[in-house]
Amino acid sequence: MSKPVILTGDRTTGPLHLGHYAGSLKNRLRYQETHEQFILLADSQALTDNIGQIGKVKDSVLEVAMDYLAVGIDPQKTTICLQSHLPALAELSMLYLNFVSVGRLQRNPTVKEEIRARGFDKSIPAGFLCYPAAQAADITGFKATVVPVGEDQVPMIEQTNEIIRKVNSIADRDLLKEVEAIVPKAGRLPGVDGVSKMSKSAGNSVNLSANPAEISSAVKAMYTDPNHLRVDDPGQVEGNVVFTYLDAFHDDVEEVEDLKCQYRRGGLGDVKLKSLLDLTLQNLLEPIRERRSEFEQRPDDVRDMVREGTRKALNRTEQTKSELFEGLGFFRL
Amino acid sequence: MSKPVILTGDRTTGPLHLGHYAGSLKNRLRYQETHEQFILLADSQALTDNIGQIGKVKDSVLEVAMDYLAVGIDPQKTTICLQSHLPALAELSMLYLNFVSVGRLQRNPTVKEEIRARGFDKSIPAGFLCYPAAQAADITGFKATVVPVGEDQVPMIEQTNEIIRKVNSIADRDLLKEVEAIVPKAGRLPGVDGVSKMSKSAGNSVNLSANPAEISSAVKAMYTDPNHLRVDDPGQVEGNVVFTYLDAFHDDVEEVEDLKCQYRRGGLGDVKLKSLLDLTLQNLLEPIRERRSEFEQRPDDVRDMVREGTRKALNRTEQTKSELFEGLGFFRL
Repeated sequence: MSKPVILTGDRTTGPLHLGHYAGSLKNRLRYQETHEQFILLADSQALTDNIGQIGKVKDSVLEVAMDYLAVGIDPQKTTICLQSHLPALAELSMLYLNFVSVGRLQRNPTVKEEIRARGFDKSIPAGFLCYPAAQAADITGFKATVVPVGEDQVPMIEQTNEIIRKVNSIADRDLLKEVEAIVPKAGRLPGVDGVSKMSKSAGNSVNLSANPAEISSAVKAMYTDPNHLRVDDPGQVEGNVVFTYLDAFHDDVEEVEDLKCQYRRGGLGDVKLKSLLDLTLQNLLEPIRERRSEFEQRPDDVRDMVREGTRKALNRTEQTKSELFEGLGFFRL
Repeated sequence: MSKPVILTGDRTTGPLHLGHYAGSLKNRLRYQETHEQFILLADSQALTDNIGQIGKVKDSVLEVAMDYLAVGIDPQKTTICLQSHLPALAELSMLYLNFVSVGRLQRNPTVKEEIRARGFDKSIPAGFLCYPAAQAADITGFKATVVPVGEDQVPMIEQTNEIIRKVNSIADRDLLKEVEAIVPKAGRLPGVDGVSKMSKSAGNSVNLSANPAEISSAVKAMYTDPNHLRVDDPGQVEGNVVFTYLDAFHDDVEEVEDLKCQYRRGGLGDVKLKSLLDLTLQNLLEPIRERRSEFEQRPDDVRDMVREGTRKALNRTEQTKSELFEGLGFFRL
């Protein structure tokens, strides 16, 4: 039995942060042992809402690749590849646009919310509206059947499966396999301000490459319980970002549960609590930062690694394209 | 000085007819002497409104190629190539979708009219709405600066130039040259019924491969002046399809003008007029039909010709893509 194929990826719009680690990278370390894993450096998709910031997208490609290597993604086990260098993905995207109506794209809840969040309401770039078809191309291009996504991205996978069913219906056989969305239990990591999910644009993130002082400073600024004024006061755990982070990053679950009890009861101060989180994050990020700085010394090796992964991905995606075009009965020279 | 580059093409949705000859093919015979000419067998674009009829699109590829050869398109002078085998065109299409808003596509007069004509109002395939970006990709992919189009297609060229200006603005230099639309004076040839332009779907066409009986039968059925009941009656020339066709296909302009005078005056019967048109069309189509039947005997040679043209087109379009991606500052492995 061959391993199931899993596809993940990141838009190359900036360095990865703790939110990526908790929500996705940690799981990818497990998946590379059990699945055939492809990770897509999604530079083409990044352009769908960053066409005015091509430099940022360009500079982030190797940065994100270094983040992958730094957290322990192993190019021997995982294929890291660059979207813009895989023409079959564009070809499949253009094909799939024929299988989906404009109205269906406009009704996609994920797209609707992202258009709102970006203030695109008045002038939506066509590439942005169409990106569900591009995502379906990515997923099917690699023959992935397992795709880990956040809760908010589940409608994208539904749309991919709709396209897959239309392709199979026209081919009159199962050319493509339907895809399973895996939603991690943890949910999205909030930013240090507790207001929204961690993101660079919200200015509430801690990068994987953060230095010790940046980590400490972020922990100090972290949102806790604004009504927990004195150590002896009872404090609230829900919505307390420090506890959310301890849940996400501290290994000893029982210790965290004990601290929650103490905090609720009163008698546990924010300073002590934050000092534990600071230590936890310093321990987590120190080896990542060190490995990262090694890779920063040899960008050509990182580039070679991406080149080699992209070569493998090219084989896979070109093969899928050929099978699909032939299966659908296209003219082939 | 290198020759200006001209791009034309046809969606591969059926055999070519007299309307194609009068409106486009005849001009291409001239252009291949004066321009660097590419002709695109637009099978991918054909799918934007024929995804349920892939077989028809497939079967039409070699048919249309044979029509080209039959009318005298010379593969030594003109590059005939197959759109679906040119991945850079899909890659440029996806890129250009980032330069155009959904609203702008929806306001494109050509797209609006074609959506209406196809009854797509309720459910527009996304690929169909997006085809102006794909057409911009075709034109710029070949570095064409001259594009002959019907009057109704002029807004498509305007949209291409808008995309070109945006690309150049972001690159901060003229990466792409703006395009000139050439609108043939003749205008669209009406169908034999005189009701609309000639098209296979309207059932009012005469194919280039029509046999003598089919030609005669089409001429017999042709719309003239319904009030011209007796030979001696004065007849109307305007809207009289037989005269429109004589204008388009009869070599002797003066003779046609004389006939128009006679007809207006009265004393020229439809039978005599139609017999002249029949002769004219028989003379025009006989050598085309004969050359075509020769090519029908050797489909492998036709396929080889398309393969060779597509190879040349691949070089051109891949080169454009590289220049564009580098010029825009994309990450390149």
